[in-house]
Amino acid sequence: MTNPLPLGSTIGILGGGQLGRMLSVAASRLGLRCHIFEPGADPPAGHVAYEVTTAGYDDTDAIAAFAQSVDVITYEFENVPADALDALESLTPIRPARNALATSQDRLVEKQFIADLGLSVAPFAVVDDLESLEAAIQIIGPHGIIKTRRFGYDGKGQVRISEGSDLAGALEQITSAPAILEGLVAFDREISVIAARSTSGAIACFDPGQNVHVDGILSTTTVPALVSDDVRSRAIDAAQRILEALDYVGVLGVELFVAGDDILVNEIAPRVHNSGHWTQNGCVVDQFEQHIRAVAGWPLGSPERHSDVVMTNLIGAEIDTVAQLSNESGLGIHVYGKADTKPGRKMGHINRVVS
Amino acid sequence: MTNPLPLGSTIGILGGGQLGRMLSVAASRLGLRCHIFEPGADPPAGHVAYEVTTAGYDDTDAIAAFAQSVDVITYEFENVPADALDALESLTPIRPARNALATSQDRLVEKQFIADLGLSVAPFAVVDDLESLEAAIQIIGPHGIIKTRRFGYDGKGQVRISEGSDLAGALEQITSAPAILEGLVAFDREISVIAARSTSGAIACFDPGQNVHVDGILSTTTVPALVSDDVRSRAIDAAQRILEALDYVGVLGVELFVAGDDILVNEIAPRVHNSGHWTQNGCVVDQFEQHIRAVAGWPLGSPERHSDVVMTNLIGAEIDTVAQLSNESGLGIHVYGKADTKPGRKMGHINRVVS
Repeated sequence: MTNPLPLGSTIGILGGGQLGRMLSVAASRLGLRCHIFEPGADPPAGHVAYEVTTAGYDDTDAIAAFAQSVDVITYEFENVPADALDALESLTPIRPARNALATSQDRLVEKQFIADLGLSVAPFAVVDDLESLEAAIQIIGPHGIIKTRRFGYDGKGQVRISEGSDLAGALEQITSAPAILEGLVAFDREISVIAARSTSGAIACFDPGQNVHVDGILSTTTVPALVSDDVRSRAIDAAQRILEALDYVGVLGVELFVAGDDILVNEIAPRVHNSGHWTQNGCVVDQFEQHIRAVAGWPLGSPERHSDVVMTNLIGAEIDTVAQLSNESGLGIHVYGKADTKPGRKMGHINRVVS
Repeated sequence: MTNPLPLGSTIGILGGGQLGRMLSVAASRLGLRCHIFEPGADPPAGHVAYEVTTAGYDDTDAIAAFAQSVDVITYEFENVPADALDALESLTPIRPARNALATSQDRLVEKQFIADLGLSVAPFAVVDDLESLEAAIQIIGPHGIIKTRRFGYDGKGQVRISEGSDLAGALEQITSAPAILEGLVAFDREISVIAARSTSGAIACFDPGQNVHVDGILSTTTVPALVSDDVRSRAIDAAQRILEALDYVGVLGVELFVAGDDILVNEIAPRVHNSGHWTQNGCVVDQFEQHIRAVAGWPLGSPERHSDVVMTNLIGAEIDTVAQLSNESGLGIHVYGKADTKPGRKMGHINRVVS
C-alpha cells in the first residue's frame, strides 16, 4: 500500500451518530484514534472517540482546526454543506472523495450514474412541478413514488401516488422540493452488498444480506440472502463496477431489488450502512474496521463470513427490550447510547448468530 | 436478575491499561459508560472511555469524586492500596468483592485457599528469610522457584533455584520480600479457564485455552486446548469451585498445569485475563463483555465458541509487524494504543481464526 497511516494516527469523522460510534470502536482496535466533528451535543460517537469537536459546519475556525488535527477525513453523515467540504478538503484528504457524495446526495444524479454504467434501475423521471409530474406520469404510469432528490432517508421525503391521487397535494407534502417520480418495481426481495475498495484499488465485498423494511425503515437483514449464486455474483459485480466508476475508497452500501433473475440497483450510500451491521458478529473484520482500513490506506480485511446472522434494528422504544434480550444466548447486542428515545429513531441493533 | 444496571449507567474501572480499554469498548456495545481511574498520564483505556480521572490512589478527593460518579466499581489492576479500596467501598459497590483481591494478591493466601478447596497445587512453603528458605528446601527439595508473595506479574519477582544455588543472593534478587518456595511441577501443558459468575450466582466458563509462555510472559493461547474431555471438565469444575468459594462476581482467570491426567491450579487472577483475549474473535460475547455483564448485574452471555482461535501477543517491538499482519486474512488485530514501545511490554495481540 502507498503510505498506510501509522499506528496512533487520527481519523476525522464528520457526524457523531451510531455509525461514527462503531467506526471509532473499530479504529481503536487498529491502534488508530478518531476525532468526531458534530454540531449536536452529546453525540453517541463522542462516548468512545479520542476527541470530539462540537461545532456547526459554518464555524470556519472549528472546521479548520478539526482538519488540521487529523490525518484523513471521512464521514458517517452525507449532507455536509459544500462550503465546509471545500474548507476541509483544502487542508486534509477526504475519503471517500467528494464525487461519491455528490453522486449519492442527488437521486437524479445517482440514478443517471447507475444507468450509465449499464446497470438496471427502476424507471424514473424528473419532477420539478405539477407540469413535470404530469409528464412523468405519462412515461412511468400512475403508480409510483415521488422522492425528493436530496435529504431523504429512512422513508422521509417520499410520497406514494396512484391513479386519482391528489398530485398538487403530493407535491406539497414534499414542500415542492426538486424530486423524481420512480416507478413501482414488483420485486421479490431487497438485498444489499456492503462493498469496500482500498487506496490501491483492491475490492472486497461482504456476502449480500436480505433486507426487510417496515414503515420505510430497515427492520432486519438476514445473511445469507435467499438468492441464487448467479444473482449473488451479479449483485457483487454491480457493486464492484460502482466502486470502480467512482474511484472509491472506503465502504459503500448498495441496495438492490431482486425480481426473478433480474437485479435493479435501488440506491447507494457512500458510507458504512445499516444493512452491514451483521458483519460485527459474522466476520473477523466487520464493515466498520473495513472502512477504517480503507480510508487509512491499509489493506482490506477478508470479507469471509464465519457465521450466519440475522440483524434486527431496535427502533424507538424497542430499546427497552434489551434487558429481556440480554437473557438470550447467541445474541450480539449493540446499543448506541443515545440520550433520548424517539419513535422511529434507531437506538441499537441485535445480531442473532444462527449457525 | 436483581437490579441490573440500566442503559446509560457508568462503570468505574481502576486501572487504564489495555484490559480497561477493552472493557470500555465492550461496555459501549451494551450502552454502558466507563469512567477510568488511573494515576498514569494518557492511559490507553482513556482513548475509548466516557471519562478519565488522572489521579493517584492517595488522592482522597479524587477517589471520592470517582466513586460518587459511578454506579459500580471494578478493576483491571490488582494492586490498588487498601486505603483507596476502603474509601471507594464506603461509597459504591466493588465487584468482584475485595476478598478475591485479598486472596489473589498474596501467593501464600492464594495457594492455601485453593488447597483448602481440595484442589491440587504445586508444593509450596513459606520463605521469609534464609532460615525459612533452607527449611522450605528440606520440604520441597532443592529445585524450585522463589516467588514473592505480592506484586508479581509476567515473571517478575521470581527466582529459580537448584542444587548449589546462592540462596542469600536469590533472596537479595527479590529484595528479601516475603515469598514462597514453589516446587517445580513436571507438567505437559498449561491451560486456563476464563470463568464468569453473575450477581445471581449463574456461572459460565469459556472453553479452556492452552498457553505458551516465553520469558515468563504469555506468548500464545490456542483454543481448543489439546486435553481430554475429562481434563477439560475437571478444569472447568475447579474454576467453578473457586468462583463459588469466593462468592465471586465477574470474570476470573484460572491458570492450571496439566500433568498426565492430573490438573494443578497454578494461579488465579480476579479480572479479565490475557489468556481470554481469543474470545473477542471466537465467541459472540467475549470475556470483556462477560465481565461487564456480571459486574452490571446483567445475565451472563453464552460462552459458546463459534471459531477455533490462536491468540498471539505482540510484545515490545513486535507491534511493528502490524503493517505486515494487516495483509493476512482471518486475523483479528487488537492494538492497545500505548504511547511508548518497551521491551517486554504488551502492545497488542492478534487472534488468528483457524476454522
